[in-house]
Amino acid sequence: MALPVETFFLRPDAQGTLQQQIQQMIAQGILSGRFQRGEKLPSTRKLAAHLGVSRITVTIAYTELLANDYLTSAGRSGYFVSDNAPAPPAFAPRAEADDAIDWTRAIGQRFSANGLAAKPQDWASYRYPFIYGQADPTLFDHANWRLCALQALGQRDFTSMTTDYYDQDDPQLIEFIARHILPRRGVSARPEQILITLGAQNALWLTAQVLLTQRRRAVLEDPCYPALSGILSQSRCHITPVRVDQDGLPPEAIPPDTDVIFTTPSHQCPTNATMPMDRRRALLSRARELEALIVEDDYEFEMSFLKPASPALKSLDDEGRVIYVGSFSKSLFPGLRLGYLVGSEPFIREARALRASVLRHPPGHIQRTAAYFLSLGHYDALIRRMGLALHERRRVMEEALETHGLRVSGRGAYGGSSFWMRAPESVDTAQLAENLRARDVLIEPGHAFFAGEEKATNYYRLAYSSIPAARIGEGVGLIAQEIDRLR
Amino acid sequence: MALPVETFFLRPDAQGTLQQQIQQMIAQGILSGRFQRGEKLPSTRKLAAHLGVSRITVTIAYTELLANDYLTSAGRSGYFVSDNAPAPPAFAPRAEADDAIDWTRAIGQRFSANGLAAKPQDWASYRYPFIYGQADPTLFDHANWRLCALQALGQRDFTSMTTDYYDQDDPQLIEFIARHILPRRGVSARPEQILITLGAQNALWLTAQVLLTQRRRAVLEDPCYPALSGILSQSRCHITPVRVDQDGLPPEAIPPDTDVIFTTPSHQCPTNATMPMDRRRALLSRARELEALIVEDDYEFEMSFLKPASPALKSLDDEGRVIYVGSFSKSLFPGLRLGYLVGSEPFIREARALRASVLRHPPGHIQRTAAYFLSLGHYDALIRRMGLALHERRRVMEEALETHGLRVSGRGAYGGSSFWMRAPESVDTAQLAENLRARDVLIEPGHAFFAGEEKATNYYRLAYSSIPAARIGEGVGLIAQEIDRLR
Repeated sequence: MALPVETFFLRPDAQGTLQQQIQQMIAQGILSGRFQRGEKLPSTRKLAAHLGVSRITVTIAYTELLANDYLTSAGRSGYFVSDNAPAPPAFAPRAEADDAIDWTRAIGQRFSANGLAAKPQDWASYRYPFIYGQADPTLFDHANWRLCALQALGQRDFTSMTTDYYDQDDPQLIEFIARHILPRRGVSARPEQILITLGAQNALWLTAQVLLTQRRRAVLEDPCYPALSGILSQSRCHITPVRVDQDGLPPEAIPPDTDVIFTTPSHQCPTNATMPMDRRRALLSRARELEALIVEDDYEFEMSFLKPASPALKSLDDEGRVIYVGSFSKSLFPGLRLGYLVGSEPFIREARALRASVLRHPPGHIQRTAAYFLSLGHYDALIRRMGLALHERRRVMEEALETHGLRVSGRGAYGGSSFWMRAPESVDTAQLAENLRARDVLIEPGHAFFAGEEKATNYYRLAYSSIPAARIGEGVGLIAQEIDRLR
Repeated sequence: MALPVETFFLRPDAQGTLQQQIQQMIAQGILSGRFQRGEKLPSTRKLAAHLGVSRITVTIAYTELLANDYLTSAGRSGYFVSDNAPAPPAFAPRAEADDAIDWTRAIGQRFSANGLAAKPQDWASYRYPFIYGQADPTLFDHANWRLCALQALGQRDFTSMTTDYYDQDDPQLIEFIARHILPRRGVSARPEQILITLGAQNALWLTAQVLLTQRRRAVLEDPCYPALSGILSQSRCHITPVRVDQDGLPPEAIPPDTDVIFTTPSHQCPTNATMPMDRRRALLSRARELEALIVEDDYEFEMSFLKPASPALKSLDDEGRVIYVGSFSKSLFPGLRLGYLVGSEPFIREARALRASVLRHPPGHIQRTAAYFLSLGHYDALIRRMGLALHERRRVMEEALETHGLRVSGRGAYGGSSFWMRAPESVDTAQLAENLRARDVLIEPGHAFFAGEEKATNYYRLAYSSIPAARIGEGVGLIAQEIDRLR
C-alpha cells in the first residue's frame, strides 16, 4: 500500500534543518506504527512538492533513512518501509507521562464505575458457551437479511439511507411496529407515540433521563438487568431495589414516595418469572395510587415457544401510565442496535428531543433494512425457527440439569433462552465461572444482577441461545463437576 | 396481506359475550387502522383455536361484521377487510383526554426546548436547495458503498455485524482512523485514544457530559453550530459565548474561570474563518494558563479543495489538552451517523463508559462497511471527486453573488461547502427564508447560529453541497430579488 502524501506534515514547532525534520518525521511515523513494513513512500519529487522544499532535501533525507535501514529502495520502483525497520514499541511512543492534564480534576463526571459486566468478545471460540444475548449463526436467517439490506442499499432508497433525519425515524419501520409488532402484545399506538432507539439500553436510558431527577425515586427489581443500575445512577435519583418473588415484582413492597417503577412483568430478568394477571392489575393500581409511572421492559417476548405470551402490561393501561420498551436484539441480533419506546405523546416528544441532542437518530439504512425484513415476513419465520431450536435445546437442558442434579431457581413458563440457577450456598459463582472458563465453559455469575445491599453469590445464569443442543449435556456435566469441587 | 392470527387478543377486561368481544376486537382493529382494506382475516378455525373459543362463536362474529360491511367474504378463499369498511378516523381513536397522567409534573427534565432547527425533510424536492449537510446523490459513490456494505454483510463478517460489542468498537475502523485519517490532520493516536461515536453530534454530547458540571464554565464560539448550545445546556454548566472575528475565536476574550473551550479552528462554523497559526499557539497557551481543555470540532476538513488544509489544532498539542472531534457526515453522508473522538486515555475511558450506558456502541455492520470503504481507497476518490464538483460550484456561486451584489461575510480560504452571508441590516433572514421557500429556494437563516444575547437577524448561510451548478445562478438571482423586496 502506498502512503498518501497528505499524511506527511512538518510540525510547525519542529527543530533542526529541513532535511533533519523530514528524516525525523518519517522515522517517527515508522516508530509509532503509522507507516508499516513494506509500505511505499511518496516519490522524492512528490513529497518535495507537497512540503514546499527542494527535491534534493528529500533525497538526502531518504538516503539517510536508507543507511539506517528504516527504508529500502527497489531501484526505479521507489522507496519502501524496510522489513528491517525498527518495530513500533509495544508501549505508546508518547508516554502517558507527557500528558500534562490532571484528569482527576478535569473530568467532571465519571461513568466508568458503572461499566457493563465484562463479557468475553471471543465467546464463539468456547466449546460450551452458555452465554446470553449473542446471535447464533446457525439460527439467524443471514441470506434474507442480506437481501433486505441490499434492497435498502438500492438507488431508490438512497434518501432513506443517506439523509439526516434530524429528530425523525424511518416511517416504514414505525408503521410496521405500530401495525404488526405492538398488536401482538395487545398494544395499540399511533406513530407519534413510538420512538426508535439504539436498542433497549438506549430506550431505558432516555426514559430515565426524561422522568428522573435528583429529587425522584425509582424502584427497580432485585435482581435485575445489570446495566439498569448504572442508567439510574446517572440520573442521580433515589433508587429502591425491591426483591422479586416467584411471581415477579410484589406491588405492595413498592414504597409510597416512588415516582417510576422499572419492571419486566412478562419475563422477569434474570429469574424468568411471569407476573400473573391479578398481580399486573394490582401493580397498575398501586402505581395509580402513588401517581407513579411504570416502565415495562418487554424483552424476549418473541421467545415464547412453550405457550403464547400473555399480553404486555401496557395492554392493560388505558391511562398512559405505562411506558413500553421493546427491542430487536434478541429476535434479530444485538449488533443491530435497534429498539423502541412506546408511550404518551408528551413523553415521547421529550425522549425524541433528548435523542436528537445525544445522537440525532439511529442510522437510516439499518432502520430500512429492518423494515423490509419485518414486512416481508422473514422476521416471523425466523422467530418460529428460533422457537423450535430453543424448544429442543431447552428439553436437552432440562434433562441434563436433572441428570446432574443442578438446581433451577427460575425457568420461565413461556420459554425464553435461559435458566436462572442456584448453586449451593457455599459456592461463589464468580469463582465457578472463572474455573469453568479454563475448561472451555462460559456461564454468567449472578452477582452482577443484584441491585440491593444483599448480593447473593451463589446464583448464575445458563443461557441456551448460542450453544448447540449436542454440547449441552457435556457442558452441564462440567458445570456439575466444578460445583462439586467448590462446595 | 394476511393478518397474522397472533395480532388478535381478547382484552382481559373486555365486556360482553365472547362473540361480542371478537366482533369488537376486529371492528376496533379496522377503526384504529391496524387492519386495512383488502387484508385477509385468519380462518374461523384458526382464530377459534388461537383464542381458545368455539369455531361457531368466531363464525357468528364474522357474520355480524359481514352484515355491517366491516368484512367481505370471497367464497372459499376466506374473509377480508371490506373496501367499504369504516375508515380509521383522522384523529386518534384513543383521544388524548384518556391520558390520565399529568405530564407537566411527570416529566422530570425537558429537552424539547433545545430542539434542532426544523429543516425540511423534503429538501430534495426544492429546485434551489442551498441546504447544508445533506448528501448529493450525483456525487456520492453509491455503487462502491453498496459493494462494501455487501462485503460487510458476508458470512465471514457475520460476527462483526451481529455481535454485541458491549463498550468496544470495530477494530478495523479504529485502525484505519489511527493510521490513515488522523495522520492527514497531523494527529497521532493509539487505538485506546479513539472512540467511535454516532456522528459529531454524539461526540460533542459525550464530551460535554464527561467534562462539564453545574460548577464549570464552557466557552463557545458566537456564532456557532446551533446544536452545541443545546448540548451544553444539558450539562447545566455556565456558558459564555465569545464573538468570533475574521480569524475565528480570539484567545484573549476567553474569561479566566473557563474550564472547557469549544472551537472550530480550521473552519469556523458558520463563518468559515480559518484560525492563523499564531492565534492557534496563543489559544493553546491561553488554555494552558487557565488550565482549561479545548474541544476541537474539525468538521469538513476533507473539503479543502482550494488549498491543503492546515494541520489540526490537536497536532500542536503535546499535553493532551485538546480533544478532537471528527465526522464522516460531510465526507460520506449524515444518515450514516459515524464520527469519532480522539483524546487522552483517561478521558476516552469515561466517554466510552458513558457511551456504553447510553447506547452501547454504533451498529457493527455500519462500522465495518465504513472500514472497507476507507481501506479500499474509495473514500479518497470520493473526496477528490466532491472537491472538484464543489470547486466548480463555488466558482459559479462567487460569480452569481458578485453579479447580484450579495454580500459575503465569510467565505473560507480552504474551500468548504457554504458561504456565510450578510443581508442589509433591515432584512430579517427568517422572513427571507420563508418567502424564498414559497419560490422553491431553501436557505438557512442565521439567527439560530448566534449563541449570545445579541442575535443578528440579517445573516444567512448558503450551502452549495446539494445544488447542481446549473441552478446556482438562477437561485442566487431569486435570493437577490427577495432581499430587494424586503429591505
